[in-house]
Amino acid sequence: MSVNDSTRVGETAADLAAVAALLEVAEELGISPLLDRPEPFTVEDVAEATAAPQRNCAEFVRALEAAGLVDRIDDSPRFRPCAGMADRRYESGYLSWAMNANRPYIEHALEFLRDPEAAGEKYDRDGRWVAVSSRWVGSQGFYPHAFSQIVDARPAKVADLGAGAGGLLVHLLRTLPDATGTAIDMSAAACAEARRAAERAGVADRLDVVNRSIESLVADPAPLRDADVVHAGFVMHDVVSDPGTFLAVLRTCREVTAEGCRLIVTDAVPYAATARERAFSSLFTYLHASSMDIRLPAEEEWTDLFRRAGYTDVRCTAHRMPTGRMFVASG
Amino acid sequence: MSVNDSTRVGETAADLAAVAALLEVAEELGISPLLDRPEPFTVEDVAEATAAPQRNCAEFVRALEAAGLVDRIDDSPRFRPCAGMADRRYESGYLSWAMNANRPYIEHALEFLRDPEAAGEKYDRDGRWVAVSSRWVGSQGFYPHAFSQIVDARPAKVADLGAGAGGLLVHLLRTLPDATGTAIDMSAAACAEARRAAERAGVADRLDVVNRSIESLVADPAPLRDADVVHAGFVMHDVVSDPGTFLAVLRTCREVTAEGCRLIVTDAVPYAATARERAFSSLFTYLHASSMDIRLPAEEEWTDLFRRAGYTDVRCTAHRMPTGRMFVASG
Repeated sequence: MSVNDSTRVGETAADLAAVAALLEVAEELGISPLLDRPEPFTVEDVAEATAAPQRNCAEFVRALEAAGLVDRIDDSPRFRPCAGMADRRYESGYLSWAMNANRPYIEHALEFLRDPEAAGEKYDRDGRWVAVSSRWVGSQGFYPHAFSQIVDARPAKVADLGAGAGGLLVHLLRTLPDATGTAIDMSAAACAEARRAAERAGVADRLDVVNRSIESLVADPAPLRDADVVHAGFVMHDVVSDPGTFLAVLRTCREVTAEGCRLIVTDAVPYAATARERAFSSLFTYLHASSMDIRLPAEEEWTDLFRRAGYTDVRCTAHRMPTGRMFVASG
Repeated sequence: MSVNDSTRVGETAADLAAVAALLEVAEELGISPLLDRPEPFTVEDVAEATAAPQRNCAEFVRALEAAGLVDRIDDSPRFRPCAGMADRRYESGYLSWAMNANRPYIEHALEFLRDPEAAGEKYDRDGRWVAVSSRWVGSQGFYPHAFSQIVDARPAKVADLGAGAGGLLVHLLRTLPDATGTAIDMSAAACAEARRAAERAGVADRLDVVNRSIESLVADPAPLRDADVVHAGFVMHDVVSDPGTFLAVLRTCREVTAEGCRLIVTDAVPYAATARERAFSSLFTYLHASSMDIRLPAEEEWTDLFRRAGYTDVRCTAHRMPTGRMFVASG
């Protein structure tokens, strides 16, 4: 081979694409847990988890090793995730969200462009990949910032709107041994998953799971009562298109909760223009507008809505995820 | 907003994912040609090409501009592709190939792991996205290296095995005004497309299009007769699993062509281990083995096969595309 390898620049796009595809294969095989824990695993572990022939599993583990995603421990048959696995998963989250979770919007882009309403009724995203890719992005993109903000408030009770499978609340209840939590989500499947996660983590006695919509809290705000922190991650933008309802939800959050309660909202702003954010922000904004009929409020519009609901102190910080913002409202 | 933007590192994965998704949307809308030419375009051009409402087209053009993929010309309603469009398309090719063209292999990874043969009969890739993503990767990943190698040989006749839609031959015939070409492909649809491309480019009188398999050249080698260059891009690995047939094809290429004819093969090696190549090479190797039943020969195995077919001078160089190699056989 006559080309000197060291004279060439890296192939970042090829690297990121290959790693994301291999991590998606691992996710489909159900072996992501083996890659997210420090304990070593073997080809036999993969064969057991997948009920597949061992030689096929050996080929996949070989591919993970060749790609630098797992390392063989000395000359043993044991492997462990590479030191950078958490970063690889975070990076892969963007590729998986953009290229896979949104696949129906890309594949049927022409129909969405011609008649968004009709296309929106025909095509829906795969909720599992939306959740998985959001979790991968969130692992460094917004989750740690929101988590530390909540822990800093030392809450006795946390309510999470759009709590999904309860990951944030379970993590919080394990970190704050005296706190209680309420998970509110309109998906019955997500609520069932949250109950199971709480059982597994041994915090089920401190977690209430409520299968309801955010809007329903206006008429019956019991789940919010006495909360010191109300958190809402990427759910407020589903309500914000109806300002009357949105303001009623915010007022409820402010009025029925404990004295000094903080409302912590992780959401997005449209077309963030910084060099670091513009490309992803553009895709995020466009897909929400064109395919999900969601117009994201600008930063000042979000802030204004919180103030109109009665909050006197509203702060906005940027999440690491481009276009992501955290609003902390209190007072 | 309290976070200082300049203190943060770039979000390369988010950038690449967003750009690839936006370029895939543009491809689905049929407006890639507007992004690949220097002439400006308007929202009206997009509306005309897509038969979609102008305000929806304006939103998409706004997204392309916000992402930095197109620039507005002064304050006019005209836009032109960004200076880096060719690089963006090349990078996006890796994401599109890995995450989109291979989607069935990822989505059904568990079935492929358990029973590759049965899964292989059930699931097939979308040939259009395989072709589009390969063209995007090839634009910088292997096409220029192969093109210049062929032009350097100053051939009077070029035969292209697995010529697809004829892109390489049409480009060659426009560059070499006295040369003739023969496109050989087993897909009738690709052959029809190659004929149309030759008509459009005004080279149809110098291009023969032959709808046949590579293997059939052993029994009837007429299309190869008198060629000065025989090119084969990513098709030899489909034949190589049957060494008898493969050697017969190579011997035919050597024996019926013009004196001094060069055989130029662009293909891949398994598990290339350099830091620049390992991740993409691993995915490429794994998907071919696990989902397409193709075991790629190592570099020395390729070289040995060329020599066994009678070639005395065999050189291998690396393509820019990780895991890609160009073999030039003569003598």
